[in-house]
Amino acid sequence: MIIVESIKEAKEIIREKKRRGLKIGFVPTMGCLHLGHISLIEKARKLSDYVVVSIFVNPTQFGPNEDYDKYPRTFEQDKIMCEIHNVSMIFHPSVQEMYPQNFSTFVEVTGQISQVLCGAKREGHFRGVATVVSKLFNIVEPDVAIFGQKDAQQAFIIKKMVKELDFPIEIVVSETVREEDGLAMSSRNNYLSKEERAIAPLIKKALDEAEEAFKKGETKAEILKKKVEQIINSSPLFKIDYVEIVDTENFNPVDEVSSESLLAVAAFLGKTRLIDNLILKK
Amino acid sequence: MIIVESIKEAKEIIREKKRRGLKIGFVPTMGCLHLGHISLIEKARKLSDYVVVSIFVNPTQFGPNEDYDKYPRTFEQDKIMCEIHNVSMIFHPSVQEMYPQNFSTFVEVTGQISQVLCGAKREGHFRGVATVVSKLFNIVEPDVAIFGQKDAQQAFIIKKMVKELDFPIEIVVSETVREEDGLAMSSRNNYLSKEERAIAPLIKKALDEAEEAFKKGETKAEILKKKVEQIINSSPLFKIDYVEIVDTENFNPVDEVSSESLLAVAAFLGKTRLIDNLILKK
Repeated sequence: MIIVESIKEAKEIIREKKRRGLKIGFVPTMGCLHLGHISLIEKARKLSDYVVVSIFVNPTQFGPNEDYDKYPRTFEQDKIMCEIHNVSMIFHPSVQEMYPQNFSTFVEVTGQISQVLCGAKREGHFRGVATVVSKLFNIVEPDVAIFGQKDAQQAFIIKKMVKELDFPIEIVVSETVREEDGLAMSSRNNYLSKEERAIAPLIKKALDEAEEAFKKGETKAEILKKKVEQIINSSPLFKIDYVEIVDTENFNPVDEVSSESLLAVAAFLGKTRLIDNLILKK
Repeated sequence: MIIVESIKEAKEIIREKKRRGLKIGFVPTMGCLHLGHISLIEKARKLSDYVVVSIFVNPTQFGPNEDYDKYPRTFEQDKIMCEIHNVSMIFHPSVQEMYPQNFSTFVEVTGQISQVLCGAKREGHFRGVATVVSKLFNIVEPDVAIFGQKDAQQAFIIKKMVKELDFPIEIVVSETVREEDGLAMSSRNNYLSKEERAIAPLIKKALDEAEEAFKKGETKAEILKKKVEQIINSSPLFKIDYVEIVDTENFNPVDEVSSESLLAVAAFLGKTRLIDNLILKK
């Protein structure tokens, strides 16, 4: 496994691999790797010959009052996990390398898909994501890139961006990996106090109950959302940021779940913002 | 020479050429090819093995009151010129192919570089340019792409975009080709009446005089611009859109030409908007 910090060097090495006919698999991350990331890496290994993992806490996707500074950085540990899981290259650039002075080019997926859910709550977040992912795609030139279903809106936005900008890249979205008690794996789980951690699985429990009601025939979005809200609000430690159901085709809120829909939740546990989601499909 | 209208087909053919180790050269155009384009094609041929010319009148770079509908389309003639000049592929997609329903992803080089000169006069123009060029780059995957110095601001913006989004592409900017009387070649010259065409070279004459004054030691932007304006305004048919001198590093207007600067002109002759420019360098 090699660790590369320079864009130029990463490009040269990857070009050489491509010349030799190797298929490049790519997993973009912000580090603090957990089993969720490992499942993405394993998927990339199955689908390619040379797996690149980027580790870069991207400042442009954090709002001014968000957790950029305190976001966990655990590079030494990440390195070991990548080594164990047969990653070929860690791309680990500095902020200065990625955003030199006077940087001012942005990629943005506009419209409803970026304006609801986390897009409504985290201004500029998805523009930051689309921009850094475009840069990483141009550096790594992957044949296939793997994203997690946990960040469902991000995955939809990246798929739309790739389709509309014609990136020659296959996007694979991989299932959410969970702790034994159901909590979706996330680097931000590290922020939780013992008490918060103990009740964090309520989000998954709420999604499960909504799914069960949906399977039993409940299609009214109001009722499904209320069920989720009630369960999460059963702990006073939670503060719901949003509970929404949107059509996955156009991200418009739905009243009645008829086509494929995304039930998405964001909730604060203390200062920690957790997200999770569920696809509702007949 | 092959003519390809489908994005998927173009990608497949180019991938196969790249697998065989051929270097791809790319000239993006809106068609109505003239000797200016031919010089770009010749440059691409020198620098690559497989030359792709795109012919696409890109609606997203035209403002609502601009000439999208009447922009000249001369595909049959363009085809012959490409054939003669040994182009390997013409990529000629439809608007529907490039911008399917609900398209909403944009690439934008923000800041001063896009806000002055044509950026101030043609709202959204450079966002349209950056978006379509990003798409074309992802489809054609060129090793080298050639742009004309006539569209100087566009060339600077594309170079900044390529650098900041890390496109693995070399950008070459090729000198403006002129008619014998000095008029910069442009598809829009076709719009000019006989009378307008006769005085159109005044723009180049004005630039030449400014250059001469600069070479003789005049560095005050006000004086250089006034000289240009006076010469162009010597014909009542002209209506100046702008005459500006900006630093090529940051596109800030300059009072005194000390570092490399761009003297740029846009002027209407009747309804036809012509542009031309000059690099001032000590």
